[in-house]
Amino acid sequence: MSDEGAADVGSDSTTVGILAASSILGKELGERLFAIDPSLAIRGFSGDPADEGELAEFGRAATLIEVLDLQRPDPELLAGLDLFFVPVAVSAAVVSALREALPPTAVLVLVDAVGWSAELAGPELGDLDLVPVVAGLPLAESSESAQVLVSPPASLVCQALLLDALRELVPRRVATTVLEPVSVLSAEAVEELLGQTRAILAFSGEMPTDLLGGQQAFNLLPVAATETAAALRRLTGVELETASQQVVRAGVFHGVALSTCIEFEQPVGDEALAAAIEVRPGLHLHPTGATSRKGSAGDPVAVAGEHSVHVSLAPLRGPGDGSRSRRRWFWVLADNLTTVGAWNAVSIGLPPTHEVN
Amino acid sequence: MSDEGAADVGSDSTTVGILAASSILGKELGERLFAIDPSLAIRGFSGDPADEGELAEFGRAATLIEVLDLQRPDPELLAGLDLFFVPVAVSAAVVSALREALPPTAVLVLVDAVGWSAELAGPELGDLDLVPVVAGLPLAESSESAQVLVSPPASLVCQALLLDALRELVPRRVATTVLEPVSVLSAEAVEELLGQTRAILAFSGEMPTDLLGGQQAFNLLPVAATETAAALRRLTGVELETASQQVVRAGVFHGVALSTCIEFEQPVGDEALAAAIEVRPGLHLHPTGATSRKGSAGDPVAVAGEHSVHVSLAPLRGPGDGSRSRRRWFWVLADNLTTVGAWNAVSIGLPPTHEVN
Repeated sequence: MSDEGAADVGSDSTTVGILAASSILGKELGERLFAIDPSLAIRGFSGDPADEGELAEFGRAATLIEVLDLQRPDPELLAGLDLFFVPVAVSAAVVSALREALPPTAVLVLVDAVGWSAELAGPELGDLDLVPVVAGLPLAESSESAQVLVSPPASLVCQALLLDALRELVPRRVATTVLEPVSVLSAEAVEELLGQTRAILAFSGEMPTDLLGGQQAFNLLPVAATETAAALRRLTGVELETASQQVVRAGVFHGVALSTCIEFEQPVGDEALAAAIEVRPGLHLHPTGATSRKGSAGDPVAVAGEHSVHVSLAPLRGPGDGSRSRRRWFWVLADNLTTVGAWNAVSIGLPPTHEVN
Repeated sequence: MSDEGAADVGSDSTTVGILAASSILGKELGERLFAIDPSLAIRGFSGDPADEGELAEFGRAATLIEVLDLQRPDPELLAGLDLFFVPVAVSAAVVSALREALPPTAVLVLVDAVGWSAELAGPELGDLDLVPVVAGLPLAESSESAQVLVSPPASLVCQALLLDALRELVPRRVATTVLEPVSVLSAEAVEELLGQTRAILAFSGEMPTDLLGGQQAFNLLPVAATETAAALRRLTGVELETASQQVVRAGVFHGVALSTCIEFEQPVGDEALAAAIEVRPGLHLHPTGATSRKGSAGDPVAVAGEHSVHVSLAPLRGPGDGSRSRRRWFWVLADNLTTVGAWNAVSIGLPPTHEVN
């Protein structure tokens, strides 16, 4: 099957491979690619022999899954690929092996939903330089010759876009709490959350926790705190003094939410912030001063399927004139699968001849 | 009935009134008081004439609810009270009227689950000085002569206790995302969350949103951002440079969670932080370095019914030695009804002769 798949590819069309093609993010990538250009040749791969002969469906496109030995991938199987997406956690050894087996001109894109790429960047990766790229940011240009691109986790994509929009206002410190949905893990984790919820409503006492690691239904689970200053500086060029984030997984299916506190060099007013966000492509500004008790500042459910990052500026209550403070709070939302998942990965990976928006 | 209720009270026992006695927090207050001292005379009140003749149940104690005209409360009805708890949002006019109608020696305790007291502190409150108090903090002493005490919202109680524990390490900046459960609103809001969840699982399309203001099931709703430096300084005496928080309501029944970033004057190590938290009464330290993917750093469900504030120190991943950084992340949990709701309110309100722990 793999030979036939490769043979189908016309020499002048772009051929794209997707590992874990039947995963939640793998499917989204395939659908997004097909929507952009139905003439793209999209091939679905899997590292799991059990997937042999299964179908990977990308909306109206479908392909038989080709099984790849991830430790020793067969260069013949990967011949003809221009672009290879890896939307699952893999080891540094697998990244190296894939890079070796792919054609020299191919671009390998690691799509990192949960931050595993930070742990890859150890010495064992040898000479492979992982280049994190957010579409639309200046550094995207310098990545054209890179071998391995990383589409960063949703939290970094969102913060990089916001900081880029606000760069003229000189942001200095960032403290972000990231509220992750369970779909950053897998489609099965989404099912487990549903199963947990049913178990609680039925008082059945049988609650599956294999994938979520604990009760996630009607609950919050802390994940990790991370220094992000170096990554955000690299992505945006903004000279941050400090930046860090704590990730918490919420009982939400899709949509990542960031509660971000940014301290600026000088006090900044609502108008300047709103104006900077409003003109930035890729960001959508919610009206400030919204009666947010009603949820009108936006929520994870409301951004499902959206293709921009939604930002609202929280009016600061309390003593003093909170609307001209150095420290401002933002509520940032994005669909982790479409906006900051597949959209970013596809945008940084596809050759410029393909219009992505 | 109210006369009989008042007549029951022995002259040397403490008599306590609870407004909104059948509300979720009113019940918790009554149960807590009864548990501390079954000889306390506890009287349940309501501002709603429809509650006339209803029973307020506080565990094994019960009382007929006495109806109070909140705009013009009858001093005779409130005669004999030593302590009066108000666990619902009321206007400044109602606070003044209650203060006037209560015996001069009585203490009025506003129990503020959601931050409404901050909005009361306007000029219309006249000479009434609202004194926010957290049990066990130094300022509690100076509040002994105060007429109106405020038991602050869970987020402030938690942060004040944590800052007090860390004061020797000189905390300077605080940025907190508060994840509130729906029980800060009402028992009916908890029911509405259940109803929303059932509607989603049944694909019924009928989703009640009257109390929650939007889809809260499998979703997060932003509430507000607030300056907190003045309040935290007043509660703890710690000279913070800046402090602010953003409140987000999560689809959680009980238990408030804080994702808190504190910047210290100097870099601080894990050991110093852990030691300071460990010795502080009222705080419970979770082991650091926990594999938090498994939720072992604690979660809102796990602290249900607990009587201390649980704190875990998030190990900081990423470039640099995150274990000796000036900025550290904390994950702080408390039962919003017991620990930082009823426990704090009862502790600041009861005369010292009653042992509260």
